[in-house]
Amino acid sequence: MSSQTLQSQVAALGHAARAAARHIARASTAAKNQALLLAASALRRDQEALLLANAQDVEQARQKGLDAAFIDRLSLSPKGIESMAAGLEQIASLQDPVGEITGLARRPSGIEVGRMRVPLGVIAIIYEARPNVTADAAGLCLKSGNACILRGGSEAVRSNQIIARAMHEGLRGANLPATVVQVMDITDRAAVGELITLRGLVDVIVPRGGKGLIERISNEARIPVIKHLDGVCHTFIDASADVAMAIRVSDNAKTQRYGTCNTMETLLVHEAIAPEVLPPLCAVYLEKEVELRGDEAARQLVSAIKPAEEADWYAEYLAPILSIRVVPSLDAAIEHIARYGSQHTDAIITNDWDNANRFLREVDSSSVMVNTSTRFADGFEYGLGAEIGISTDKLHARGPVGLEGLTSQKFVVLGHGEIRGG
Amino acid sequence: MSSQTLQSQVAALGHAARAAARHIARASTAAKNQALLLAASALRRDQEALLLANAQDVEQARQKGLDAAFIDRLSLSPKGIESMAAGLEQIASLQDPVGEITGLARRPSGIEVGRMRVPLGVIAIIYEARPNVTADAAGLCLKSGNACILRGGSEAVRSNQIIARAMHEGLRGANLPATVVQVMDITDRAAVGELITLRGLVDVIVPRGGKGLIERISNEARIPVIKHLDGVCHTFIDASADVAMAIRVSDNAKTQRYGTCNTMETLLVHEAIAPEVLPPLCAVYLEKEVELRGDEAARQLVSAIKPAEEADWYAEYLAPILSIRVVPSLDAAIEHIARYGSQHTDAIITNDWDNANRFLREVDSSSVMVNTSTRFADGFEYGLGAEIGISTDKLHARGPVGLEGLTSQKFVVLGHGEIRGG
Repeated sequence: MSSQTLQSQVAALGHAARAAARHIARASTAAKNQALLLAASALRRDQEALLLANAQDVEQARQKGLDAAFIDRLSLSPKGIESMAAGLEQIASLQDPVGEITGLARRPSGIEVGRMRVPLGVIAIIYEARPNVTADAAGLCLKSGNACILRGGSEAVRSNQIIARAMHEGLRGANLPATVVQVMDITDRAAVGELITLRGLVDVIVPRGGKGLIERISNEARIPVIKHLDGVCHTFIDASADVAMAIRVSDNAKTQRYGTCNTMETLLVHEAIAPEVLPPLCAVYLEKEVELRGDEAARQLVSAIKPAEEADWYAEYLAPILSIRVVPSLDAAIEHIARYGSQHTDAIITNDWDNANRFLREVDSSSVMVNTSTRFADGFEYGLGAEIGISTDKLHARGPVGLEGLTSQKFVVLGHGEIRGG
Repeated sequence: MSSQTLQSQVAALGHAARAAARHIARASTAAKNQALLLAASALRRDQEALLLANAQDVEQARQKGLDAAFIDRLSLSPKGIESMAAGLEQIASLQDPVGEITGLARRPSGIEVGRMRVPLGVIAIIYEARPNVTADAAGLCLKSGNACILRGGSEAVRSNQIIARAMHEGLRGANLPATVVQVMDITDRAAVGELITLRGLVDVIVPRGGKGLIERISNEARIPVIKHLDGVCHTFIDASADVAMAIRVSDNAKTQRYGTCNTMETLLVHEAIAPEVLPPLCAVYLEKEVELRGDEAARQLVSAIKPAEEADWYAEYLAPILSIRVVPSLDAAIEHIARYGSQHTDAIITNDWDNANRFLREVDSSSVMVNTSTRFADGFEYGLGAEIGISTDKLHARGPVGLEGLTSQKFVVLGHGEIRGG
C-alpha cells in the first residue's frame, strides 16, 4: 500500500471516530448498557465462528514459528469467550461516570461553579495479539462514552473481526453508530505510526504490551499516552515488621504470578530484622525454585543467594528470580526505590506508624502499600470494576485506570444573569 | 555558547530541580507557608532594587524598539510589586492540596484502598517578559509541593533575578532548598528547546503567552504540556432568553475586557429572538465602538453589521470586533461551536431547562455556562484561589488550573497482612 493511501485510510478511521465520539458522549446510560449486553449475547451466540477464526489465526501464527507464550495469549477457548462476554456484562453493571457533577458551590459573584465528568473523546488502543483485550477495551471505552480505534496484533486479525462484529451488532441494536468501536484491519505496521500522530482526531493512546511496543509508541506519539513501561516493584521489610506476616506477604508478592507487572522484583530488608526473616523466607523461595540474587549482607545470611550485580536492581525479571538487599534504614530503602524503581507499586511491611506514614508519603509510585502484597495493584482488586491498564505517568491517571481514567472533568457554571465586575 | 555547554547547563538545572522536588514534596504546610510569607516580605523590602532592575529592563526593551503593549507587560510599579507580594500571601492562605486522602474504602479482600494527592514533581513554566508571572508561578508551584524551573522572556531577566532572590530568601528562611525555585538566566533561545525535552527531569510544561510561543512548545516538547491555544468563546442567545439579561450578559462577555482569552468572540442568536434582541444589543456594541461582522440574517436586522467571512468564525480577535450569526436552532448553535470553537468557554442564555442541560452536556469545552458571562472563566472567580493558566486539553486538567491541577493522585493501600488469592 502506498504511504499516502495508508495515511488517508487511517485518517478516515480518525474522522469516523471523531464523529461517533459526539454520539456516544451524549448517549444515555441505558443505551450504552444495552449495547454491551447485546454484544455479550452476540459473542456467546457466535462462539463457534469465533473459535474457528481463532483457530485459523493460531494456525498461521504456528506456521510463522511464533513461540508457545505468544500462541497461548492468542488462543481462545470456550471458557475464554464466556469470560469475555461476562466481562462486557460486568462493565454494563458498573456505574456510568459520565455526567456526574461534583463540587457545585456558589461563589461570591452569585455564579455556581462545579465540575461535570465527561468522556475524553477518541481513544486509540494498541496491543499485541490478545483477542480478549479487544472486547475488554471496547467495552470500557463504550461505557465511558468514548469512541475507540483498536489496533491489535495482526496475528489476531480474524478473531478480532468476529469480536468487532459482535460489538457492532450491540451498538446498532441500541441505536448507536457502529463506528463507536472500530477495529483497524490494516495489518501494515506503518499504520500504527499514522494512528499515533493523528492530532485532533485521537485524544489519547493506550498502548498495552511489552516494553518495546510501549517505548516505541511513547517516543513517536504526538498525542498523550497513558502507559507504564516497567514494573520494578519493591517490598521493604522494616525492622518492626511481624515476621510471619513479612514472610507470607513477600512470598505472595513474588510467587503468586511471576509474569505480571505488579510482581515484586526486589526485596529490601532492614538489617535489624534480616537475620530473623531472611533465612526462613529464602527457604520458601528456594522451595519454589526462585533464583535469589543479593548483596553481600544478604549472602552472609543465606548462602544460596548468588551475588547481585548493579543491573539486578534495575531488572524487571518477570520470572522466578528475585534480587535481595539488606538496608540500614527506612531512608536507605526509600532512597533505593527512588533510584532503581519504576514508580509502579511498592510496599512496606511494618508495625511502626511513623515509618508507614513516611513510606506512604515519600515513595513516589502509582501505588504505595502498607502490610500487603504488591500483587493487589489491579483495577478489579481496587474496586474500579475493570481496568484498561496501569499508568505510571504522573498526569491525568496514576495506577490502575478504570472507567474514571477514561474521562475528564469540565467546569459547569450556572448563572442567573451575573456579569463580571458588575 | 556551544550547544553542548548549553545542553549540560540546562540538564544541570533539571537535576537540581529533581533533587529539590523530593524535599518540597514532603515539606510541611507550615514550612511552605513560611517560605511564601518570607518571600513576600523580601519583595516589599527590596521594592527599590526591583524597580531599579525593572527600569533597566524597560530601558533596554525600548532601545530594542519593542512596542508599547510589550513595555506595558514588562513594567513594574510599586502597586504591581505590592500585588505580587499580596499574591504570595494569598497563596499561603490557600488550603494545602498535598497529602489529602480521599475515597478510602475497604475491599472484599480486606485491603483499604484510597487516593493520596501528591505533587507532580518538576514543573517548567515558559512565559513572556512579564515579571509578575515569576512570583505567581513560583508561589503556586511551591505551595503545591513542586519544584519549578522558570523561563521568562529574556527582556525581563534583571527583574526576574531580583524576584528569584526574594523567593530563595523565603525558601532558605523556611529551611527548604533554594533550588525549589530556579529562574533560568540563560538568555539563549535554544535553552527553551533543551528544557522542553528534558524527559525524566521535568514532569510537565506550562507555557504562558501568545499563540506562537505555545504552538512552538507543544510541537517540540517531549514532555506533557498543560496549555490552551485559542479562546474562541461563544455566547448563544436561545429563543427563550430573557432579553434584558441577554443584552447585559452579552455586552459584558464582549466588552468588559477585549484582550483576554475568555472574552466572547462570536455571538450566536436564535432566529426567533434575533429581531427583538439584536437591534438593542448591537446599539450597545456600536456605542462602545465594537466592529460588528455578521451573516446575512444578522445584517438584515442591523444594517451597521459588516459582512462576515468564513475566517471570522474561527477568529480570536482579542480586540473590539465581534462576529454575529443567526441560527435556526439549539442544534445549529452546538454544531457551530463544535466546528469553529476552541473548546475554551461557551455560554447559553436561556430560560429553557432542557436546552440549558443539553448545552451543558453536549458542548465539549473546558467551561460551559448558563445565563452568565464567559468572562467568569478564571481561577479566582471559580474559587481556585489563583490559577497558573487555563487548559483546553482533555487530559489531567481542563479549564482554569489552580493548586489542584499541579498535583496528581496516587493509590494508597492499607493492609493487615492480606495476600492475593489467599
